[in-house]
Amino acid sequence: IQRIDTVAESADKGSYRHYMLKEIYEQPHVVKRTLSGRLSGGKILAEIMGSKANDIFKSVSSVQIVACGTSYHAGMVAKYWIEGIAGVPCRVEVASEFRYRKFKVQDNTLFVTISQSGETADTLAALRLAKTLGYSASLAVCNVAQSSLVRESDLYLMTEAGPEIGVASTKAFTTQLVALLLLTVALGRYHDLDEQQEANIVQGLHGLPELMHETLALDPAIKLMSEAFADKHHALFLGRGAQWPVAMEGALKLKEISYIHAESYPAGELKHGPLALVDSNMPVVAIAPNDELLEKLKSNLQEVQARGGQLFVFCDKSAGFSAAPGLDLIALPHVSDIIAPILYTLPLQLLSYHVAILKGTDVDQPRNLAKSVTVE
Amino acid sequence: IQRIDTVAESADKGSYRHYMLKEIYEQPHVVKRTLSGRLSGGKILAEIMGSKANDIFKSVSSVQIVACGTSYHAGMVAKYWIEGIAGVPCRVEVASEFRYRKFKVQDNTLFVTISQSGETADTLAALRLAKTLGYSASLAVCNVAQSSLVRESDLYLMTEAGPEIGVASTKAFTTQLVALLLLTVALGRYHDLDEQQEANIVQGLHGLPELMHETLALDPAIKLMSEAFADKHHALFLGRGAQWPVAMEGALKLKEISYIHAESYPAGELKHGPLALVDSNMPVVAIAPNDELLEKLKSNLQEVQARGGQLFVFCDKSAGFSAAPGLDLIALPHVSDIIAPILYTLPLQLLSYHVAILKGTDVDQPRNLAKSVTVE
Repeated sequence: IQRIDTVAESADKGSYRHYMLKEIYEQPHVVKRTLSGRLSGGKILAEIMGSKANDIFKSVSSVQIVACGTSYHAGMVAKYWIEGIAGVPCRVEVASEFRYRKFKVQDNTLFVTISQSGETADTLAALRLAKTLGYSASLAVCNVAQSSLVRESDLYLMTEAGPEIGVASTKAFTTQLVALLLLTVALGRYHDLDEQQEANIVQGLHGLPELMHETLALDPAIKLMSEAFADKHHALFLGRGAQWPVAMEGALKLKEISYIHAESYPAGELKHGPLALVDSNMPVVAIAPNDELLEKLKSNLQEVQARGGQLFVFCDKSAGFSAAPGLDLIALPHVSDIIAPILYTLPLQLLSYHVAILKGTDVDQPRNLAKSVTVE
Repeated sequence: IQRIDTVAESADKGSYRHYMLKEIYEQPHVVKRTLSGRLSGGKILAEIMGSKANDIFKSVSSVQIVACGTSYHAGMVAKYWIEGIAGVPCRVEVASEFRYRKFKVQDNTLFVTISQSGETADTLAALRLAKTLGYSASLAVCNVAQSSLVRESDLYLMTEAGPEIGVASTKAFTTQLVALLLLTVALGRYHDLDEQQEANIVQGLHGLPELMHETLALDPAIKLMSEAFADKHHALFLGRGAQWPVAMEGALKLKEISYIHAESYPAGELKHGPLALVDSNMPVVAIAPNDELLEKLKSNLQEVQARGGQLFVFCDKSAGFSAAPGLDLIALPHVSDIIAPILYTLPLQLLSYHVAILKGTDVDQPRNLAKSVTVE
């Protein structure tokens, strides 16, 4: 495994103790940059993805996303968006799996890759394979303009996250989500999305940086919450819908930098096995924005409490949860269901950061991991 | 959560210490029963799924599978088969997720549910929802003929597993796999499968019970291996392709009955995060049948060893692995790639059983879990 050396790696941490913390706090700024020049008059400018973008999106009838690790989680969120908002069937697959299996490519399928570096070996190999399989076009969501992935794709949408030094991806992930939501809208326009819905999403995106600021201001409460994890070796992360992959990403962060064995489940699967693990040594983190799934999630959470599990809930401040013995909660600013997965990522990043600090691990360079996985 | 009481629950354990062990050992017999009357002259009799089955399969152009827990893992294996062997696009989704999200149903999609009891609340609700969404037909893979799921489906394919008493599913899973392979062939006949391939699969299925007997004979070696897990609190299970869901199922068994936090990954994702967890306290179980992915898996496994991880490999006896310090292995009889996921399930069941015995847990009635999840 080799590291990609960039000038950016010597970039200044400023007043932050770690690159990761700096990068978490940069998110309102880099999200604004990812949106900059891409929205106009309540609309998304699809041309920014390439001059042929609109012609391609018009003819697309399904989407195949391929990625690894954190970028795969971004793709999982995008699947919920592309199917739920744009009304276009979408498949997401881990690149190392996609490369080695047989399947039939459906007509008019857009092939989308996601990678911070644009050099992830399996993702790049998947793109090269895809070109031989009859996809209608390829689009890269990437943070490095000069990367192989961008050069070899028909269309691309840059995440303007700037250099990311911490091995555990933070701002690259949230800007990937922003880019994928832009893609969803650009596709949806030729499918199930009307002008009013597009305007609503654009408005939501415009308001996101400010909501991120408000969410980051919850840092002291999250730091306090992290103390409950410092002596733990396990954690479960639960979400439903597009917040399930956010829970997956939250669990991955905790794994990567604090070496706590954190695993995520769609909340409804709890009763089909993982509930056996729940006791006082297994904290359960749940993402519970104020949406139609909230009531379901509440009933799942009661089961956890009944079994002695400690609950840590991230919810909308209007969600009707309140702290109680065994139930800690952090209330986030109110946000639309569509934008919520981006916002709810932030407190989970902060939680894993503070837990790692308490554990005394090397936050920016966790053991065994490289920033870009450029070999298979 | 209520338990479904059946006469079978008082069935005899015979000479076995637990129902789970009895049910593991019943697998060669019940697989034979699931095949009985369904194969003839190197062909699968699709009519057994219903008189309209062939007409429906002829017009199917995609498959949507919905299930929970262990049955979901069976669906994940089936996705690899249905896409790889039959050449039909296939989606698999957890029932509790399927029910609560928006998406567009593609034309001529067969809706497949999988449930041992046929009363799993989320799966049954998903079927009822699906009927309002324009699927071309529904098919249930189920173990209980009188169940709601069977009664309400257009087609059904019974797994002839007999009553399953152990809460952790074993013979229900492997007979689900057999049933799903029969479905794959019945579909494939109208798509990408030729007569010779069908005959090869039928031959493989005929040979499966005997291979299962040979695999169960490895029990003493697996029992010995289990000792290394008795003092552990974590485990990783790795597989690739159709063996990834088998690894998921192996991890779930260990979770359910030994309360060890076991998690599975497609082997290629190891470098994208979970490798940070690997040290001498985190045993890594890998399924490595002798197929085209073996070399890839070998290189992933070297990384684990280089980081002090203990490796437990289940491989084909011709795979070219050999035991070494830090690498324990169990060699299985040679089996075709297509049949392999069914066979490789058995040693993972036995491993979890023996670990649970050493841990002293209640094998047949693990804490917090019910046999059939008949509420949401």
